[in-house]
Amino acid sequence: MLLGKKKESRAEFRCFFSLLQGILERLESGEVVIGDGSFLITLEKRGYVKAGLWTPEAVIEHPDAVRQLHMEFLRAGSNVMQTFTFSASEDNMESKWEDVNAAACDLAREVAGKGDALVAGGICQTSIYKYHKDEARIKKLFRQQLEVFAWKNVDFLIAEYFEHVEEAVWAVEVLKESDRPVAVTMCISPEGDMHDITPGECAVRLVKAGASIVGVNCRFGPETSLKTIELMKEGLQRAGLKAHLMVQPLGFHTPDCGKEGFVDLPEYPFGLESRAATRWDIQKYAREAYNQGVRYIGGCCGFEPYHIRAIAEELAPERGFLPPASEKHGSWGSALDMHTKPWVRARARREYWENLLPASGRPFCPSLSKPDV
Amino acid sequence: MLLGKKKESRAEFRCFFSLLQGILERLESGEVVIGDGSFLITLEKRGYVKAGLWTPEAVIEHPDAVRQLHMEFLRAGSNVMQTFTFSASEDNMESKWEDVNAAACDLAREVAGKGDALVAGGICQTSIYKYHKDEARIKKLFRQQLEVFAWKNVDFLIAEYFEHVEEAVWAVEVLKESDRPVAVTMCISPEGDMHDITPGECAVRLVKAGASIVGVNCRFGPETSLKTIELMKEGLQRAGLKAHLMVQPLGFHTPDCGKEGFVDLPEYPFGLESRAATRWDIQKYAREAYNQGVRYIGGCCGFEPYHIRAIAEELAPERGFLPPASEKHGSWGSALDMHTKPWVRARARREYWENLLPASGRPFCPSLSKPDV
Amino acid sequence: MLLGKKKESRAEFRCFFSLLQGILERLESGEVVIGDGSFLITLEKRGYVKAGLWTPEAVIEHPDAVRQLHMEFLRAGSNVMQTFTFSASEDNMESKWEDVNAAACDLAREVAGKGDALVAGGICQTSIYKYHKDEARIKKLFRQQLEVFAWKNVDFLIAEYFEHVEEAVWAVEVLKESDRPVAVTMCISPEGDMHDITPGECAVRLVKAGASIVGVNCRFGPETSLKTIELMKEGLQRAGLKAHLMVQPLGFHTPDCGKEGFVDLPEYPFGLESRAATRWDIQKYAREAYNQGVRYIGGCCGFEPYHIRAIAEELAPERGFLPPASEKHGSWGSALDMHTKPWVRARARREYWENLLPASGRPFCPSLSKPDV
Amino acid sequence: MLLGKKKESRAEFRCFFSLLQGILERLESGEVVIGDGSFLITLEKRGYVKAGLWTPEAVIEHPDAVRQLHMEFLRAGSNVMQTFTFSASEDNMESKWEDVNAAACDLAREVAGKGDALVAGGICQTSIYKYHKDEARIKKLFRQQLEVFAWKNVDFLIAEYFEHVEEAVWAVEVLKESDRPVAVTMCISPEGDMHDITPGECAVRLVKAGASIVGVNCRFGPETSLKTIELMKEGLQRAGLKAHLMVQPLGFHTPDCGKEGFVDLPEYPFGLESRAATRWDIQKYAREAYNQGVRYIGGCCGFEPYHIRAIAEELAPERGFLPPASEKHGSWGSALDMHTKPWVRARARREYWENLLPASGRPFCPSLSKPDV
Repeated sequence: MLLGKKKESRAEFRCFFSLLQGILERLESGEVVIGDGSFLITLEKRGYVKAGLWTPEAVIEHPDAVRQLHMEFLRAGSNVMQTFTFSASEDNMESKWEDVNAAACDLAREVAGKGDALVAGGICQTSIYKYHKDEARIKKLFRQQLEVFAWKNVDFLIAEYFEHVEEAVWAVEVLKESDRPVAVTMCISPEGDMHDITPGECAVRLVKAGASIVGVNCRFGPETSLKTIELMKEGLQRAGLKAHLMVQPLGFHTPDCGKEGFVDLPEYPFGLESRAATRWDIQKYAREAYNQGVRYIGGCCGFEPYHIRAIAEELAPERGFLPPASEKHGSWGSALDMHTKPWVRARARREYWENLLPASGRPFCPSLSKPDV
Repeated sequence: MLLGKKKESRAEFRCFFSLLQGILERLESGEVVIGDGSFLITLEKRGYVKAGLWTPEAVIEHPDAVRQLHMEFLRAGSNVMQTFTFSASEDNMESKWEDVNAAACDLAREVAGKGDALVAGGICQTSIYKYHKDEARIKKLFRQQLEVFAWKNVDFLIAEYFEHVEEAVWAVEVLKESDRPVAVTMCISPEGDMHDITPGECAVRLVKAGASIVGVNCRFGPETSLKTIELMKEGLQRAGLKAHLMVQPLGFHTPDCGKEGFVDLPEYPFGLESRAATRWDIQKYAREAYNQGVRYIGGCCGFEPYHIRAIAEELAPERGFLPPASEKHGSWGSALDMHTKPWVRARARREYWENLLPASGRPFCPSLSKPDV
Repeated sequence: MLLGKKKESRAEFRCFFSLLQGILERLESGEVVIGDGSFLITLEKRGYVKAGLWTPEAVIEHPDAVRQLHMEFLRAGSNVMQTFTFSASEDNMESKWEDVNAAACDLAREVAGKGDALVAGGICQTSIYKYHKDEARIKKLFRQQLEVFAWKNVDFLIAEYFEHVEEAVWAVEVLKESDRPVAVTMCISPEGDMHDITPGECAVRLVKAGASIVGVNCRFGPETSLKTIELMKEGLQRAGLKAHLMVQPLGFHTPDCGKEGFVDLPEYPFGLESRAATRWDIQKYAREAYNQGVRYIGGCCGFEPYHIRAIAEELAPERGFLPPASEKHGSWGSALDMHTKPWVRARARREYWENLLPASGRPFCPSLSKPDV
Repeated sequence: MLLGKKKESRAEFRCFFSLLQGILERLESGEVVIGDGSFLITLEKRGYVKAGLWTPEAVIEHPDAVRQLHMEFLRAGSNVMQTFTFSASEDNMESKWEDVNAAACDLAREVAGKGDALVAGGICQTSIYKYHKDEARIKKLFRQQLEVFAWKNVDFLIAEYFEHVEEAVWAVEVLKESDRPVAVTMCISPEGDMHDITPGECAVRLVKAGASIVGVNCRFGPETSLKTIELMKEGLQRAGLKAHLMVQPLGFHTPDCGKEGFVDLPEYPFGLESRAATRWDIQKYAREAYNQGVRYIGGCCGFEPYHIRAIAEELAPERGFLPPASEKHGSWGSALDMHTKPWVRARARREYWENLLPASGRPFCPSLSKPDV
């Protein structure tokens, strides 16, 4: 057994208690909060989201499919059920937007209630900002979604996937209006936002605007994202500000990305398969994020349920418990130890998987690509 | 529009008609039957199957998760809902086996009823054969599962994943007892079965034993599997025998496999990510299978719903219709044509994806591995 | 010390003796004969041969450059100085051919006299055979070169780089006329010659025509060439024939070659750099050739002097001595043991170099190519 | 013909004239000066230099081999014959040092006299500096070599391969004593010297110390070296200083190097083959160096004669003439246009070679390595 008796009882106690606690109480007590993973990319592969549009109408068209994915993340160890409301604003979805936001809240709450998870209402950057920096109009779009979240009484709020810190600040300012904790993540690289504002400066502005949790999500793989987080952390320290750190990177390896991330890679979005992270890559990422002081650790596009479970398994010693889905997973491949082939049994150990250099099976393909810009 | 008005009405007519037809009527009329995809590997990643054991207890423990996966394959275009009964025999599951088989049949039938799909009861090689070639005992195990399938009135039967033709022949002999069509697939390479019996000879023996459909599944990627099929076809032709051909390969690239397939690759089973096929790889595979004369085309481990959809989209011109999930997919990436970045819009065409050489994002990893044996 | 006192004196004795011995006496006594390496490709890079033409006019235009390369191979351990007369026949060189052959013989003899080496007169396939199978005209071309070799009194003869066994047989028939030992090598793959005559059959015909030494050279890398040799050996055994085996492969890795070899690879001839073998690859090749029973071991295009030295070093335990150029080479990198950096010192051992998987430094390039045909 | 009549006569005139001109007159008139290439690594492969020691005793032991390499570079287009005196100081060679320096000067002068080349006396960093920053002792070592160079009347002086700018400054100070032009190159990356002094600052100090030509050599591949040069150029501009720029990088691709360059790569020094640059890579490098304003362009370890020829061919339009060795080279592969195979003929053009992505032929190897530190 990974975890001894004593830790288990502590874990039970903790679990019971955390149900009564909000996101900030958890983070402030030093607890690790595990985010959820990929919805758009994963549901695209399951047949419920259209690539190119990337809108979440599935919450009303195919609620079973969305519920099922929430359940998988919950079982994998997620402590947050984020409403599947990415781009579900009036500018992207017309009249459907309101129903979509409401249905998404209901699904998230329904599943969250089956485990130790909070519900987070999620908004993202608008389609408008890059053409018209019209603060009033953009804030109105944010406020429309927030009204649904407030009505459905979500536990906290996430503003995510912002390329420009100015728009992210506007989002925080709106979200603060409902008196719930606000987390905000930008989709930027260590080089900074689209106007070259550094990650450190972005973090400072967002905390000053009222965010309690700041970080990055999407667009870049785990390694790049952790570099950006490090710069945010340093920026906050220099400014004498405090905030919780949050990271939700791609589940893809993207060392060859340019400043705008994986969208510019020639494989985006229909040829990313060979870049997908293994569970062992994610354990390494989770450990590094933890060591950097990040306590809200999840994933974005490409993070399948088993990747979330890998975070929960890596940090089980610190947290004191394993997630439900670990019933179906031998830690570090241990369930292979009964295989009939001795060389497969030999893979039932940590050293094997930590050191594996997995082949692509594609000898006519390169290992890196040049981004289109 | 991919398909004109005329084809659509033909398609409607055909759909209506095929609902009344069994697997052999469909194949004999020249129709393409699309199989389903990966259950064990896919549900492992979703948290419901344990790698190493690879047993389908999820049908009773988490029926929603299994139903959802069936639904995804149905929407993607599968014409067969295979019962999730792999290894669900008494030797692997003890007393649970009967409930598992029954529940799996119910789930498959429930979903099949929502579309144009048949239910196939599935058995596979036993854990016994390699130690004791005890025909009576092995046939008894097959017969136990068959009794459930007959009771639940499946439409036809699939015996799959056989390494030894002798055991596969026994399976066919048992399955024939229920007077339903029998399909049989072996998990062998062009080098033949574990006793070096050639694919051609294997096919001949299986057809002589009573199989109406023969082919290969699992263990090898699409390219290798099609080579094996070609040898089976030639063997049958030389012997003057007729049978329908069926192929359900891995959704992974495995040019470096040895005779026993992907199990011996160092990446099996927890580091196969970078070998995963793209949808475009699968369109190519579907076209080649079709050109070889194969009419039952599906997938095995690693075939996600969108891979099955890729088969249905590639063969839509021949079949006259697209699957339901193509509502959420622009053919050849066409839905990218409204992207804000011109270089992403430029990816909205067939030539782009057909010629893409996707990078692994892993410059420290090789492109091929040496199998462990 | 690699070799003890006793072996050294045996070696001296042997060296003295072998000077009096011809190629067949050496091979029949079980001695390893080390061939030389690359002339055309190497002198192209040094500026004395024109790619595309691939003719050896350098022997008259720049004799110093040719002499120097002979010297380097002699120092590296070559026991054969092959005249640089590839394509130096009337069909390729017009009136120059006679002077070129004579000068090439003089250079080879001059350098051979400085060490333990024999002079071999070399001819290759004509430019005519593929268009006109005119035996009389082709034999006349071979005989013209042979007359110069006889006049210059070479020690034995090599007919090399034949794609068609029929033309190779004609070459052997002509060369036999001068009563010198004849070696013959074809540039074929395990699939056989251009008319699909198997390597085994080719070897049989060549030995029946009078060749004492048969094998392969050029067109394919070490691994492929050794496979072809194995088939030749089996063919001779089945036919109850005896001959010495000889192998002189490319110094490039070509696992992706088609039937006609490296010429069809897209990198030929100006982009082959990243395929070049290391010295350690060549030690492995030399050991395998020896284990297969090959006793005339050398190289062709891409075999630089240090590759020949690697053969001599690998087989030093069997031969009892090291070549002169090993004064400038610590076996298995041992001369690194005084490097100032400890991690470079750690490379001064066999295990390090045997297990190194050298990176290409080219992450945007594939590891294999598709041949042009 | 690449170059018309008019240019040729201009070229002749220029050639005649430049023979009367020193290095600075040439550079000041805007002429491109082509350096030479690899001696240690190249002569190691030819059997005359011992890896690990890397000393040039070959100039007395095997002068023919050294003369031949000088000749190859001269024919390839080098305008500088640098004395093969790397590490030929008393600390590395004991009593032999004086003879080696004298013989190296004689060889360089002998070959330079056969073409349009100057003789440069070369020194490099000592083995002492890293342990004892003993200015007097180190300067004495430099002065000893300089005395031979002065006696042999070299045309100018090169101080190369310095990791620390302080020692490089000492070298320049000594070399200035003989009233000849001084070039100095450091073996540093864009990150700066071993004490983190930036390339810009290094360049400034070296020019202030009296160097007329500054730049980088060795340790890093062409792309990295040009980045360092750019920083040097910017540093000089900011300081309002003027100097000629010089670049002599590795002929290997090293994008994965750390701060100390290729020595720390696991392939150093016996497994670098697959990193070797093609001639087309070098044409690209030469063009970029020229566009950056560099006018002294050569190479270091791994630069074979044909790489130097590639510089001369790329810059032939600017210089007005081709080097002698281009007699044996069809520009951009043009000599392939008579090949018997049409697909090889199709390679006789610039677009083909510029766009080729050469495969390594090594599917079990990665494309990048992690440096040992």
